[in-house]
Amino acid sequence: MTTGTGSAPRKVRAPRGTVRSAKGWPQEAALRMLHNNLDPEVAEHPDRLVVYGGSGRAARDWASFDRITAVLRELGDDETLLVQSGRPVGVLPTHEWAPRVLIANANLVGDWSNWEEFRRLEALGLTMYGQMTAGSWIYIGTQGILQGTYETFGAVAAKRFGGSLAGTLTLTAGLGGMGGAQPLAVTMNGGTALVLECDATRIERRIAQGYLDVRADSLDDALRRAEQARRERRAVSIGVQANAADAVPELLRRGAPVDVVTDQTSAHDPLAYLPSGVDFADWGDYATRAPEDFTRRARESMAAHVEAMVGFADAGAEVFDYGNAIRGEARTAGYARAFDFPGFVPAYIRPLFCQGKGPFRWAALSGDPADIARTDRAVLELFGDDDHLARWIRMAGERISYQGLPARICWLGQGERAAAGQRFNELVASGEISAPLAIGRDHLDTGSVASPYRETESMADGSDAIADWPLLNALVNTASGASWVSIHHGGGVGIGRSLHAGQVSVADGSDLAARKLHRVLANDPATGVIRHADAGYGQAEETAEQHGIRLPMREGRD
Amino acid sequence: MTTGTGSAPRKVRAPRGTVRSAKGWPQEAALRMLHNNLDPEVAEHPDRLVVYGGSGRAARDWASFDRITAVLRELGDDETLLVQSGRPVGVLPTHEWAPRVLIANANLVGDWSNWEEFRRLEALGLTMYGQMTAGSWIYIGTQGILQGTYETFGAVAAKRFGGSLAGTLTLTAGLGGMGGAQPLAVTMNGGTALVLECDATRIERRIAQGYLDVRADSLDDALRRAEQARRERRAVSIGVQANAADAVPELLRRGAPVDVVTDQTSAHDPLAYLPSGVDFADWGDYATRAPEDFTRRARESMAAHVEAMVGFADAGAEVFDYGNAIRGEARTAGYARAFDFPGFVPAYIRPLFCQGKGPFRWAALSGDPADIARTDRAVLELFGDDDHLARWIRMAGERISYQGLPARICWLGQGERAAAGQRFNELVASGEISAPLAIGRDHLDTGSVASPYRETESMADGSDAIADWPLLNALVNTASGASWVSIHHGGGVGIGRSLHAGQVSVADGSDLAARKLHRVLANDPATGVIRHADAGYGQAEETAEQHGIRLPMREGRD
Ligand SMILES: NC(=O)c1ccc[n+]([C@@H]2O[C@H](COP(=O)([O-])OP(=O)(O)OC[C@H]3O[C@@H](n4cnc5c(N)ncnc54)[C@H](O)[C@@H]3O)[C@@H](O)[C@H]2O)c1
Ligand SMILES: NC(=O)c1ccc[n+]([C@@H]2O[C@H](COP(=O)([O-])OP(=O)(O)OC[C@H]3O[C@@H](n4cnc5c(N)ncnc54)[C@H](O)[C@@H]3O)[C@@H](O)[C@H]2O)c1
Repeated sequence: MTTGTGSAPRKVRAPRGTVRSAKGWPQEAALRMLHNNLDPEVAEHPDRLVVYGGSGRAARDWASFDRITAVLRELGDDETLLVQSGRPVGVLPTHEWAPRVLIANANLVGDWSNWEEFRRLEALGLTMYGQMTAGSWIYIGTQGILQGTYETFGAVAAKRFGGSLAGTLTLTAGLGGMGGAQPLAVTMNGGTALVLECDATRIERRIAQGYLDVRADSLDDALRRAEQARRERRAVSIGVQANAADAVPELLRRGAPVDVVTDQTSAHDPLAYLPSGVDFADWGDYATRAPEDFTRRARESMAAHVEAMVGFADAGAEVFDYGNAIRGEARTAGYARAFDFPGFVPAYIRPLFCQGKGPFRWAALSGDPADIARTDRAVLELFGDDDHLARWIRMAGERISYQGLPARICWLGQGERAAAGQRFNELVASGEISAPLAIGRDHLDTGSVASPYRETESMADGSDAIADWPLLNALVNTASGASWVSIHHGGGVGIGRSLHAGQVSVADGSDLAARKLHRVLANDPATGVIRHADAGYGQAEETAEQHGIRLPMREGRD
Repeated sequence: MTTGTGSAPRKVRAPRGTVRSAKGWPQEAALRMLHNNLDPEVAEHPDRLVVYGGSGRAARDWASFDRITAVLRELGDDETLLVQSGRPVGVLPTHEWAPRVLIANANLVGDWSNWEEFRRLEALGLTMYGQMTAGSWIYIGTQGILQGTYETFGAVAAKRFGGSLAGTLTLTAGLGGMGGAQPLAVTMNGGTALVLECDATRIERRIAQGYLDVRADSLDDALRRAEQARRERRAVSIGVQANAADAVPELLRRGAPVDVVTDQTSAHDPLAYLPSGVDFADWGDYATRAPEDFTRRARESMAAHVEAMVGFADAGAEVFDYGNAIRGEARTAGYARAFDFPGFVPAYIRPLFCQGKGPFRWAALSGDPADIARTDRAVLELFGDDDHLARWIRMAGERISYQGLPARICWLGQGERAAAGQRFNELVASGEISAPLAIGRDHLDTGSVASPYRETESMADGSDAIADWPLLNALVNTASGASWVSIHHGGGVGIGRSLHAGQVSVADGSDLAARKLHRVLANDPATGVIRHADAGYGQAEETAEQHGIRLPMREGRD
């Protein structure tokens, strides 16, 4: 095994412009997107090749990064580079419909699928954590989080409030890396948000970024403002410094007019949840000094917090767990009704998955924001009738500042993705867009992930843990003309807990690209429609029928 | 979820002849090989769709079997069928270089990768066990076991005895499903074999099948005959009814002139190993009545058995564990030196893997044995200089009676597989072979398996549990033109313990097939050469260099 042969950390940034250095645009796209993932504007710790999500990396080490770059520069249109956990291990002759890069990151045999073994192998230099889009070179910064959160609150609105959160009040907590997207996502959906956060600096930061509108001085002040905004149907978000374990029960007691309740404090780690009665300033010290005592108190607080959430649900509010495991912690602390409200995936995201919807995204390889502006218009031209989508595209165009290469994300479903891809390719061909686009998605998509604590929680047929689906998804994308395909282990929920696949395809304006995009962007979500139809979701069966996706066992019934 | 809609168990057998009912030969091949796996001559329990290896199935249920068959009959040359754990779940438009079938069997997310969860999901009708070649439709009966065993003893001969076992005595035990291949494999390599077996009916059966030559009346008799045959360099195999836990130590005490020692009693399951002092007739009864007591005694016996094996090793014999976990059981019983001899993979198979060698196999879709005879001649024409290979091909032609479609297996390495595939395709094109051939392999191949208790035990760099490799292998085969590709979990070592991939490609005499075979049969073993080169095996680096397989990190060093 070779590691660093003099390759040192350095600042990298994607090449820009309309001229490529590689032999084809798919190779050039891989090269630019790999670099873009490590752009200091994009990556959390670029020197350590860490893009996001704790230790999600773009390459094993700098020597690997250099060799991947060198290979991509001279890779032919009928050759394929193999990347094993961030390290380029081989180049093989394939054919023009084959992906230019095949990637497998952090995969372990079942009995060895635990953090201890992973860390051991990582220390030996034999593997790396790829997260979802870090090791598969299609991370585009925090826009993805905002859009996913917008989508969730949009689904809440669609399910309960006729498509808009106008005139509703959402109560939540946590303004961290993920949670900070909540206030803007609520207001983008027309609603009022009241957000509890124990760390005042986080409140200030979110206001500075334009994600949060105002800070209230006290819980009284916050509630008064929220009630008024709700009455006046104003889309405004209000932050207040408070401990959620005290404030949520207090608001319940006061009969606050709350329509939606969720939470994104970092409850998954008891040491990262501030217990009731502990001063914010003492947090770090106390957690280090007496972790067991701290954990016990954090869990008791979470039980009180969740009990109040259940109280709001009993009172008729829409309540959901937003993926931070707070229900599990509350149950551990002895609160029996902890699971009386659902996780966000079964409640809101799965119906989208049944329509083949998921986190479609693209980046302008030119580096020119005008190219993304043109794609935004194209999306509106194609799908302008979809209010929810159109609102996002317009607001994103105004509010999102790019990190690294200009990029856009929006959730598109079966049929829509292929239509968008075709249109984008035409725009590249005609020169209306100045250089090719890389079109990909996150791995938390309809057909590309098995993750029993999140994306596949509580499947109708009990198939949560079956991991055949993401593997079929990766094989299908490889067989359909994607530019690069990846299979990863771990993602956002950790080693042992998920298997997921990614694909990125390049619209370079060529006829070949058009034919490939036509296949990939239909087949990729189709595997999700198939997966959900197979699990018995009628909505997915309808999507399949509508889009001519063949389900052999169903055909067999006729 | 739909299951059986009136589809009942029945006898199936592959269609024969030169006329296909499907739209192309790859589809027809998949159809015939699926049927062939369930031929009563081939499958262990065809009514339950079980092909081999406990519960290794060809399809989820009979309704799935029927629908797979129906889809294959009308599947286009640019369509792909998706099979999820034996159930046909979708058909998608792809392209002519894409596989016609993509298969994922028995895969589970890491934390759920255990037998309990698997059995639960299986009972719900949501998954099936695919073994290696059962669920990927390329099982060819017991010839595969014989050939693998021949290969192992051939590697022993190459390592220690100048390429032949002539004049050596091999001591082993167990004449069951796997173990029964040992005596014939030893004599095919020119050696003398002494095999201990506590079940007299097994000895008789192996003699009747021509796998074992003679039965001795007693251990004395057996030893006398064995010593004489060894002296006279006669390739003869001698079976004797004895308990290995008594007889192996006894032979060590007597200073028997043993050159090679191994064991294939079913030691992996303590209830399936007869303890010393227990009468064969009382076995079943005792194991059921007092399983814990039985287990303790079985383990103590295994400790004595393994201690004697170490004794032979100390005396200079070649000793190895043949994949039945007897060393682990002996250590559990407290024998400290249990791991003083190696497993067979690191000792003999890995050097073959480093040359890209593995279990290459093919079946004549015509059903005509003359087609296999022609391929046998082709192999001799191509590789006649390889004595070990030539001996196998000649003896197989004489001794092997086909089960189901006529088929052949032999281990071929990097370069050889592609050459054989090209030649076979030419023979189909010229009409010398009457109908196409299905060319595949077992999953326990050089690049296609991660299995820390067997194929990837004790890798030089400690990467035993890294599962990126079989996934890359499946992606590469999908990107290289294979006819069907599969990713399985479990195989011969069980749920949680391995991940492995398969490919089958069809030689139908067309130019397209020639180009695909050229890619697949080079790239498939190349992933194994790459995997072993990456782990630091110099022999694999040499193979890569010799065959022009590009290793980017190595290139980076120059
Ligand atoms: N929905 C999803 O798909 C998804 C994805 C990833 C992560 N998550 C989970 O969401 C949670 C939030 O993620 P993040 O990245 O924003 O975490 P983070 O650590 O960046 O932020 C958590 C915030 O909660 C605050 N907080 C902690 N205890 C509090 C309390 N008692 N009262 C009020 N505020 C408190 C902290 O001060 C911090 O600002 C995590 O548990 C994470 O695992 C969900
Ligand atoms: N080498 C490999 O790659 C590989 C592959 C699969 C299985 N195996 C292992 O090889 C072993 C044998 O497999 P099998 O299919 O032949 O099993 P099997 O159960 O069909 O046969 C085992 C035989 O051992 C005999 N036996 C048991 N205890 C004995 C004793 N004390 N003395 C003498 N004979 C005894 C039994 O009577 C039986 O005939 C298993 O442990 C299996 O897991 C190895």
